[in-house]
Amino acid sequence: MQRTGVWFIGAHGCVATCAAVGAMAFARGLLGGTGMVSEHSDFAALGLAPVGGFIFGGHEVAKTGLGPALKKTQESTGLLPDELILRLAKPLDLFGREVKRGYAVSGGRARSNAASVVGRLRRDIESFRRRNRLERVVVVNVASAEPAWEGIPGLAEAGRTADGIRRIVRGRGGRGLPPSMLYAIAAMESGCAYINFTSSLGASLPGMDELAREHGVPHAGRDGKTGETLVKTALAPMFTARRLRVLSWEGHNLLGNSDGATLRDERVKRAKTANKDAALRSIIRDDAMHSAVRIDYVPSLADWKTAWDFIHFEGFLGARMAMQFIWQGCDSALAAPLVLDLVRFADLALRRGESGPMPHLACFFKDPVGTDVHDFQAQYGMLRAYVR
Amino acid sequence: MQRTGVWFIGAHGCVATCAAVGAMAFARGLLGGTGMVSEHSDFAALGLAPVGGFIFGGHEVAKTGLGPALKKTQESTGLLPDELILRLAKPLDLFGREVKRGYAVSGGRARSNAASVVGRLRRDIESFRRRNRLERVVVVNVASAEPAWEGIPGLAEAGRTADGIRRIVRGRGGRGLPPSMLYAIAAMESGCAYINFTSSLGASLPGMDELAREHGVPHAGRDGKTGETLVKTALAPMFTARRLRVLSWEGHNLLGNSDGATLRDERVKRAKTANKDAALRSIIRDDAMHSAVRIDYVPSLADWKTAWDFIHFEGFLGARMAMQFIWQGCDSALAAPLVLDLVRFADLALRRGESGPMPHLACFFKDPVGTDVHDFQAQYGMLRAYVR
Amino acid sequence: MQRTGVWFIGAHGCVATCAAVGAMAFARGLLGGTGMVSEHSDFAALGLAPVGGFIFGGHEVAKTGLGPALKKTQESTGLLPDELILRLAKPLDLFGREVKRGYAVSGGRARSNAASVVGRLRRDIESFRRRNRLERVVVVNVASAEPAWEGIPGLAEAGRTADGIRRIVRGRGGRGLPPSMLYAIAAMESGCAYINFTSSLGASLPGMDELAREHGVPHAGRDGKTGETLVKTALAPMFTARRLRVLSWEGHNLLGNSDGATLRDERVKRAKTANKDAALRSIIRDDAMHSAVRIDYVPSLADWKTAWDFIHFEGFLGARMAMQFIWQGCDSALAAPLVLDLVRFADLALRRGESGPMPHLACFFKDPVGTDVHDFQAQYGMLRAYVR
Amino acid sequence: MQRTGVWFIGAHGCVATCAAVGAMAFARGLLGGTGMVSEHSDFAALGLAPVGGFIFGGHEVAKTGLGPALKKTQESTGLLPDELILRLAKPLDLFGREVKRGYAVSGGRARSNAASVVGRLRRDIESFRRRNRLERVVVVNVASAEPAWEGIPGLAEAGRTADGIRRIVRGRGGRGLPPSMLYAIAAMESGCAYINFTSSLGASLPGMDELAREHGVPHAGRDGKTGETLVKTALAPMFTARRLRVLSWEGHNLLGNSDGATLRDERVKRAKTANKDAALRSIIRDDAMHSAVRIDYVPSLADWKTAWDFIHFEGFLGARMAMQFIWQGCDSALAAPLVLDLVRFADLALRRGESGPMPHLACFFKDPVGTDVHDFQAQYGMLRAYVR
Repeated sequence: MQRTGVWFIGAHGCVATCAAVGAMAFARGLLGGTGMVSEHSDFAALGLAPVGGFIFGGHEVAKTGLGPALKKTQESTGLLPDELILRLAKPLDLFGREVKRGYAVSGGRARSNAASVVGRLRRDIESFRRRNRLERVVVVNVASAEPAWEGIPGLAEAGRTADGIRRIVRGRGGRGLPPSMLYAIAAMESGCAYINFTSSLGASLPGMDELAREHGVPHAGRDGKTGETLVKTALAPMFTARRLRVLSWEGHNLLGNSDGATLRDERVKRAKTANKDAALRSIIRDDAMHSAVRIDYVPSLADWKTAWDFIHFEGFLGARMAMQFIWQGCDSALAAPLVLDLVRFADLALRRGESGPMPHLACFFKDPVGTDVHDFQAQYGMLRAYVR
Repeated sequence: MQRTGVWFIGAHGCVATCAAVGAMAFARGLLGGTGMVSEHSDFAALGLAPVGGFIFGGHEVAKTGLGPALKKTQESTGLLPDELILRLAKPLDLFGREVKRGYAVSGGRARSNAASVVGRLRRDIESFRRRNRLERVVVVNVASAEPAWEGIPGLAEAGRTADGIRRIVRGRGGRGLPPSMLYAIAAMESGCAYINFTSSLGASLPGMDELAREHGVPHAGRDGKTGETLVKTALAPMFTARRLRVLSWEGHNLLGNSDGATLRDERVKRAKTANKDAALRSIIRDDAMHSAVRIDYVPSLADWKTAWDFIHFEGFLGARMAMQFIWQGCDSALAAPLVLDLVRFADLALRRGESGPMPHLACFFKDPVGTDVHDFQAQYGMLRAYVR
Repeated sequence: MQRTGVWFIGAHGCVATCAAVGAMAFARGLLGGTGMVSEHSDFAALGLAPVGGFIFGGHEVAKTGLGPALKKTQESTGLLPDELILRLAKPLDLFGREVKRGYAVSGGRARSNAASVVGRLRRDIESFRRRNRLERVVVVNVASAEPAWEGIPGLAEAGRTADGIRRIVRGRGGRGLPPSMLYAIAAMESGCAYINFTSSLGASLPGMDELAREHGVPHAGRDGKTGETLVKTALAPMFTARRLRVLSWEGHNLLGNSDGATLRDERVKRAKTANKDAALRSIIRDDAMHSAVRIDYVPSLADWKTAWDFIHFEGFLGARMAMQFIWQGCDSALAAPLVLDLVRFADLALRRGESGPMPHLACFFKDPVGTDVHDFQAQYGMLRAYVR
Repeated sequence: MQRTGVWFIGAHGCVATCAAVGAMAFARGLLGGTGMVSEHSDFAALGLAPVGGFIFGGHEVAKTGLGPALKKTQESTGLLPDELILRLAKPLDLFGREVKRGYAVSGGRARSNAASVVGRLRRDIESFRRRNRLERVVVVNVASAEPAWEGIPGLAEAGRTADGIRRIVRGRGGRGLPPSMLYAIAAMESGCAYINFTSSLGASLPGMDELAREHGVPHAGRDGKTGETLVKTALAPMFTARRLRVLSWEGHNLLGNSDGATLRDERVKRAKTANKDAALRSIIRDDAMHSAVRIDYVPSLADWKTAWDFIHFEGFLGARMAMQFIWQGCDSALAAPLVLDLVRFADLALRRGESGPMPHLACFFKDPVGTDVHDFQAQYGMLRAYVR
């Protein structure tokens, strides 16, 4: 059997633990596959890798082990009861042993130079691959969101080409590079597919597309479309198809997980809300529309996000009308199956020898690489078209 | 210039008055075309008839004139201020003169035989056409909803063929036929296109398709998809695409217009809620899903419907999540531009010599004739495909 | 130590099991007393009986034991995890042994005569008291709701006096009496305080007040005010104090517990919604106000009720405004602590030798006996006044 | 007849225009008194001044006349149709003539010294009184909100006494004083009652109480409690009375009037949200509670505020539950009748010779002077107690 490895950046986080536990439980028939897009009959003929065959590992900056991480996920989500964890003790133990020390910038200032960091990350991934005799590895970033990268001097310029990126990594500017980008480089240079499920920079600069092609690996991202933005991009096309004029679309997100906590950093918040708002504005192309996205940290909600969207719109005869929606979802339960889907589709692309951005995976992301399509149904159509 | 006539069944109702006033105001530049689908650039090349050229008339059972009807619409909607009505005095006067006495069953029992009713209705429509030298006429049912027809003896059987329908109209069973069906027959036999914007029977039986083809006229219906059901059919495909399992979808509609008042009749309510629920169930094909639609009459809301939908769903790892939406819309402001769109598309079909059901207009209806597609985006795709 | 017994009618239901487990867990320091009104410092000086000293027993018509009942409550509420139940094994075992076969009318028709039923129920309660050497017993009805009683011939008349009630119990009409009334009679005749936490008839007829006084016992009821009606009666006085005119107040309740299932019986639903609506109308005394209460059974919600209230109101200059609220609560978690509060207050009244209705407990009920006050804050003021 | 003058600070704003038009229309029987608390039968015996006898005037910084101001209010609220304005042409003309040039700080820096500003404002108010032979005048601040005052050097210290205030007004620090405070001083020194309906500083410093007493005038404030905070302070006591533990209470306000526009200034927003949050925290005294108030400017809403509050709470057995409410109200229609109420109660206090803060008017304010009571029902009880 050809084995596929899944390497998480943020291996002890809620999304990674839910994805790993869910895959193991599903493979053993303990839980169903609700929420996994790739289980849809539309994709049955593709021969996607069974999630039961995945070998899990990853980088993690937190120093506690996998056990405490699973407990923390249970506290935040209520989805990983002791009974379930006990029954998966063996595969979880294997996963736990494959988690290596991650790379983070403490206090906004890197201590090591970028090239040596990339080298170290590569060694971790490659030894994971060798040790487990894996045919293919998919690296997935599910770590906490980083601040917006726009302020990093020279990066926009250098990021245009693979050469530029290599140069900045080797040079003095490398210390300022976001960890997510170093992880992406390490993944690609190790011949792994790379998925950015966060709003961090990752592989979003054009030069990374080139780098991916050079190494013959596919990549996709960024920022998983799991809840409020998903609804937004499913609903907004209805307003445009009906030519109802959206005057204002205000979204308020409340959440209390570590993702929420990092959002107290205004620069992280800006990166996140920008993606959410851009998705909407690409569908409703009306400069007069007022729109805003708020994200607030509400600790008691833990991983259960509550979002309220208020949509004020105008119809015939100048009628002013309103629609509101309230979304109450468990972020990790929404994200985890999509992460497994992405691994399967990325694994397929690796097998097929496809490289560079995978725009057909746009329906999974708030800010998809390789395409400007945000309309959810249109994106889903792109996935089905790729399959055929 | 080739002129198109618009014949309303329910000419004094909120929808008809808003459609007529809106068309006149739009043609004179007093108001924009927000909410009119046919004004979308996608349809620019079709050469649809300009709404400014429409001549309006219709049947109406209420005996007060158009003036009081406009006042009543203003009270219910707030969208037809005196100032606007004054500026449209002349075309409204022409419309008012073309409103003829409608046909209704009082106390559930017809006094005339069906064939003579159809004859009378035809004479009204045909003299309207001659008097105004109209090239084409589109008959649109925007009257109050009728009770569900299922209990009418022999109708399901007779309704299978055009011959069966002609037989029952001429016979004793004709007295029991719903007025909406007699109107539809009269329209078709007069060579008019027919649109059923209500939940009444109209042209929904298979034999009516045959009748339409015999007379070379197109028809479409039924039950305009203007608000809560529109949102339902735009959102439900998102849940299925994400393989999120909908456990319960409960919809509550509050409204206070005459449509709401007729809904106090449990048989009318049943007809209406059945359409709303069927649309949902055709998208989410899960027998275990619980769903219900409530419609309650709340007089103070007048024509401003408020609907609350509660969607309980399950995701990965058994997570139970919820989405709710609240829709606050003016029914007539939502319906009126769609009525004008339908007239334009029906007029085009007449010009092109198309006859029978128009499934490409499915996106306008809760229970579309000629197709089982309820997914709003898929329906809109059908309209764009027809256009190309 | 003087011991107090708590006798549940419906001992295996969600409310009884949550109340018993909660009391046991609170007494052992395993859980806090959140939601227990009687733990408020306002009541500290009263010397209320500690819930840790309560001895539990009751009647139950379901034939499965307490163990399966606890499992079922856990499934519906998620509040009684195995770990907690294990730690309370001993007191729960004692409770389980004190549950006796309850009395129900199957198929709407009693098989036994009423006097002998009352006799049997009394024997169960009295032997519970003797066996456990209890000073005082409080009987609490937390069984499923019964249909509205208004159709029972002769009951309104007979129910006016204690004598009338005794007469109907002994006579042939006794077979038609609602079980909840027979339980109430048995409780009072056994010298127990009686609490009706349901919308069933119980002790609501005037003659029952007399009966209570004759036996020197206090009683209170009916229909616990736990969620939507609580909010209604807290909010409605704000509208009257501000002289904002409520045009419509529509309430929709979705729930999936056994209480919800019985509500599919239209007569049960009528009893329940009547209480909810009457509370509102007694505060907003405006005949022109439209109001309605809907209760629908949505199985997936189990014990977690979701309610949506829509309030349409008029202000100065004729402005039409709206308020909506959504309540998502676990019915049993809301009811259980109030049941413990009521037991403590009824126990205090027994100790003080008070008999008849306890209007100072109005804040706990949708349809309080002995008072017409529904304004929640005014009711709470009555409780504090009683204490002083 | 003894005549009462009403002097608005912000005479052309939505609140002032709605209050004046509403009073005139109510006096002439053109509109009802819905929303006016003082029309409640509880207050009938007090002999409050009829609003029909009020003479209106005020200060205004905008230079357009009253006519355009009324049009602007109509655009924002839809509550002052031309027809109504026409019928009130005469009294509105009198009002318009009594509007004088207001005082504002442009660019955050006063050009005149404070003592001369106070002198000029006094002369305007006093000549209004003489010209109209008014017995009593009530000055009401309904101008746009000012930034939080906390940063003004020396003000906290000087504001402790009337002497301190006089000293700072005369000295160099006077240039930095908020206009609202100078208006309040002018009102008191002119022997007028003073009402601060805004979140600006006004008469909130302790020395202003002394000043009011020295001049024998009553005052009240601050920040009218019209919508979301009203609901908050009516609902929060329900949670405390039930001992339900509020974990988080998040409020989001969307509005599009000039008040909303000024809130884009972060310092103004801070002043406003602080009042809203403090009211809640004074009722729910739990330091662990998370709470936040957001106010966002959404132009399309104009004067129609939409607020969403999310309340996360814990009950018995650790159950986590939620309540949400949505408030959709016209700010001016809610504020205007309360302004008239406050004028009537202040006028009564003037007649009775009462001076200093009026804590019995707490129910009208988010941050009441002279009391710490925020519980709405308790505040309303204080008003009724004052009346008796």
